[in-house]
Amino acid sequence: MKPESGSSEDAHLREHCLQSAAVYEGSFLKVKRDIVRLPDGGEASREYIVHPGAVMIVPILDDGRLLLERQYRYPMGRVMLEFPAGKLDAGEAALHCAQRELLEETGYSAREWAHAGVLHNAIAYSDEGIEIFFAKGLTAGQRSLDVGEFLDIVTHSTAELDAFAAAGSMTDAKTLIGLLWLTRWQSGQWALDWRPAQASV
Amino acid sequence: MKPESGSSEDAHLREHCLQSAAVYEGSFLKVKRDIVRLPDGGEASREYIVHPGAVMIVPILDDGRLLLERQYRYPMGRVMLEFPAGKLDAGEAALHCAQRELLEETGYSAREWAHAGVLHNAIAYSDEGIEIFFAKGLTAGQRSLDVGEFLDIVTHSTAELDAFAAAGSMTDAKTLIGLLWLTRWQSGQWALDWRPAQASV
Repeated sequence: MKPESGSSEDAHLREHCLQSAAVYEGSFLKVKRDIVRLPDGGEASREYIVHPGAVMIVPILDDGRLLLERQYRYPMGRVMLEFPAGKLDAGEAALHCAQRELLEETGYSAREWAHAGVLHNAIAYSDEGIEIFFAKGLTAGQRSLDVGEFLDIVTHSTAELDAFAAAGSMTDAKTLIGLLWLTRWQSGQWALDWRPAQASV
Repeated sequence: MKPESGSSEDAHLREHCLQSAAVYEGSFLKVKRDIVRLPDGGEASREYIVHPGAVMIVPILDDGRLLLERQYRYPMGRVMLEFPAGKLDAGEAALHCAQRELLEETGYSAREWAHAGVLHNAIAYSDEGIEIFFAKGLTAGQRSLDVGEFLDIVTHSTAELDAFAAAGSMTDAKTLIGLLWLTRWQSGQWALDWRPAQASV
């Protein structure tokens, strides 16, 4: 049995959509409310965010330090330390999005990229997936933030990030998982498949 | 400068609430839409989920294996492998919630508990925080699932969880961060402050 599965051997856990309705369509958040058939034949409602998907980039400078952002996150009411990230445009490939977001938010472009994996950050109420990329061979350039976007670029060593996480002063989920991947890759336990950046991006 | 901060030295990043409205109140999801003053004096809207907060438990059996759940997550359309977790009841202390959720969902109670930290899983659009607890000295009992809740209990070694994460078959963010804490604690890098369970819970 696989840890994650959509297969029929999990029929005793599966829920089936009976009816689906868009109940809120904001400028950013889209909420759906579905009526589902439960495994025991009963019914329940499931509310969730429909999200376009996102990417995160772990950018490694030539001296081994990592490039991060300090950004005010309104729902949190404070500035958070994060690896660069952003939402997919409609129809956009994840790698293209990663290269675009890194350039727009930090001004850096990278010669080599690796796709590490995906994380699902709010499985109870959002279909969001964040594709995790690593970037190295970085070259500084000019950033071009979106209107209404304000963020500082900072650099930290892996040891500094590890200490922040242990002390509870770096709490963003995707960034903690970036740290997990980074340290597993550095220790040779998890592999990354590095590829040259496409010239066209 | 702290990695996370609400202090005035970050005035060039801060956003200030001008107006706040509840725009969707479902049976589970509450959405707010605020108008904010940006650092440059402009205005923007911010939509976000107002969440009661949650807990996750990393339960360690006496033989060192971990107790996890396989649960169908409707927004994902598949069964996910997760550490036990649940939402805070109104006014409930996080440790009480952790002890209650572990008992309800798995039937296990624990003699020793440690609070590891907190993670924020969707900082762009939710104020949710998940408090991370560890539990050991486990004793099996009778679980009592909520109506409409269906889940399997499974056990895995740390090495198995690590392999699932590396292979991309365990992608739940809180569970990956549970694995980060677990392996850092096992290697002696991050500390846990174990305390006996309160008799009253």
